[in-house]
Amino acid sequence: MSGSVPFIRRLAVIGVGLIGGSLARALRTAGAVGEIIGIDRDEANLRQAAELGVVDRAAATVAEGVAGADMVFLSVPVRAMAGVVREIAPHLAAGCIVTDGGSVKAEVVAACDPLMPAGTCFVGGHPIAGTEHSGVGASFATLYQGKRCILTPAATTDRDALATVARMWEAAGSEVVLMDPEKHDRVVAAISHLPHMVAYALVNAVEGYDRFEESILRYSAGGFRDFTRIASSDPAMWRDIALMNREGVLEMMDHFAAYFGQLRSLVAAGDAEGLERFFRDSKESRDAIL
Amino acid sequence: MSGSVPFIRRLAVIGVGLIGGSLARALRTAGAVGEIIGIDRDEANLRQAAELGVVDRAAATVAEGVAGADMVFLSVPVRAMAGVVREIAPHLAAGCIVTDGGSVKAEVVAACDPLMPAGTCFVGGHPIAGTEHSGVGASFATLYQGKRCILTPAATTDRDALATVARMWEAAGSEVVLMDPEKHDRVVAAISHLPHMVAYALVNAVEGYDRFEESILRYSAGGFRDFTRIASSDPAMWRDIALMNREGVLEMMDHFAAYFGQLRSLVAAGDAEGLERFFRDSKESRDAIL
Repeated sequence: MSGSVPFIRRLAVIGVGLIGGSLARALRTAGAVGEIIGIDRDEANLRQAAELGVVDRAAATVAEGVAGADMVFLSVPVRAMAGVVREIAPHLAAGCIVTDGGSVKAEVVAACDPLMPAGTCFVGGHPIAGTEHSGVGASFATLYQGKRCILTPAATTDRDALATVARMWEAAGSEVVLMDPEKHDRVVAAISHLPHMVAYALVNAVEGYDRFEESILRYSAGGFRDFTRIASSDPAMWRDIALMNREGVLEMMDHFAAYFGQLRSLVAAGDAEGLERFFRDSKESRDAIL
Repeated sequence: MSGSVPFIRRLAVIGVGLIGGSLARALRTAGAVGEIIGIDRDEANLRQAAELGVVDRAAATVAEGVAGADMVFLSVPVRAMAGVVREIAPHLAAGCIVTDGGSVKAEVVAACDPLMPAGTCFVGGHPIAGTEHSGVGASFATLYQGKRCILTPAATTDRDALATVARMWEAAGSEVVLMDPEKHDRVVAAISHLPHMVAYALVNAVEGYDRFEESILRYSAGGFRDFTRIASSDPAMWRDIALMNREGVLEMMDHFAAYFGQLRSLVAAGDAEGLERFFRDSKESRDAIL
């Protein structure tokens, strides 16, 4: 792969953490990119990104960082996305594509799209990949291998720009799926945002259980730790996701609460048959996605 | 370890699956046991246990299997435990210790203890270890290494028998913790039973979400799969646990629902500070158990 022609001449990555850093590594490994410029308000993280060779050069300012780039990748908290686009807009070269990796799309696309200067294009995106770790030190080139990346074009999105962003994610090893931003937000509310809400609430509930003098979390074993892994995710990032996809998250929380309440009724009633059916349905659905 | 003296002369394992099979393997590796007899109503599984050398011999009947054993380990569904004890009681040798690996203790201990003949002893136990797989083919000698095993002696439990069971689990690599059966049931309701109820309900909720024509489970990635791993656990086993630890499970389900409802209110109110605090508290608790 490293012998292929770099179809991205200069990539600017704003936010060189797990997501941005892993994309940079993947595109470099694939030979898809000429030069990578890093931009990050966390100076220590940016220095590390340069030292690790994840970026070729750390930019001192956002203006300098995006100058001459044909592709800009935004990997900042979803609530910060529009502010960053507003800041970089005057400095973008003609033909530049700006795309993002945020977990919420409807509000982000609606806010960023109108901010783009003529002759440039915004393409909303969301790689369905990640770990509970943060920062460039946690990034790795294969994070996106075999994963899906959802791109959420608006009606106005330039088709060539969309094709280039799709090619970028394919070069990183992902399968690209197109979806409208509203559907994206409902889908990820179900498969990602809801599980995070559940995991965060579960850990707090168990920690807050005060029937005994000792914390019972000390008795937790591998199953509990695996189950609650995602509760170790970045709180500020998840605060923003909950705020930006509020409607989708609330819908899924209520949807889950109804199923949880149904299970509670089966337990309370001691309904052996109903319990076994509930558990068996779940096992079958879960086994089917392995 | 394999040079140590076998302090269990003959071990009968009733239910040679993941739990019973792994204990047999661990004790043999540790040189803690002379002979291992397997008993299982699933004939194919029992044959496999003998073929794999997990047991030295498969018993044709329960009576024959426990005859002459100084230790009997019960690894059958918790609702079947008392019935098995009733069945084996007339065939136990004097001094025999019967212990179990069930996930519920108060009802099991209360039911089994009175069934034991004079000169024999029941010791309730529960190794906090497992995987989502079942059967002797899934068993392995290191399952209990570094894990906790909770023993739940009753007031009448013979101290020497308790010490022998503790020594057995230590030989298998576990740290033994003593706890009264009622506390045990609340602790595991929190760290194990509740997460299973949540995972089962979550998978059913996502599968049952019908806003779109396609099943959105197909978009799930590693995080969702890890999070819902325990929803692939044996439905009949979890039906029995929910029935046998009903009070503890209901208490924890309600306790969780209160925290989940609190989080829902924060999302609905768009309370950025409250959300971040909720997530941060959870992350801190979870990171502390790593």
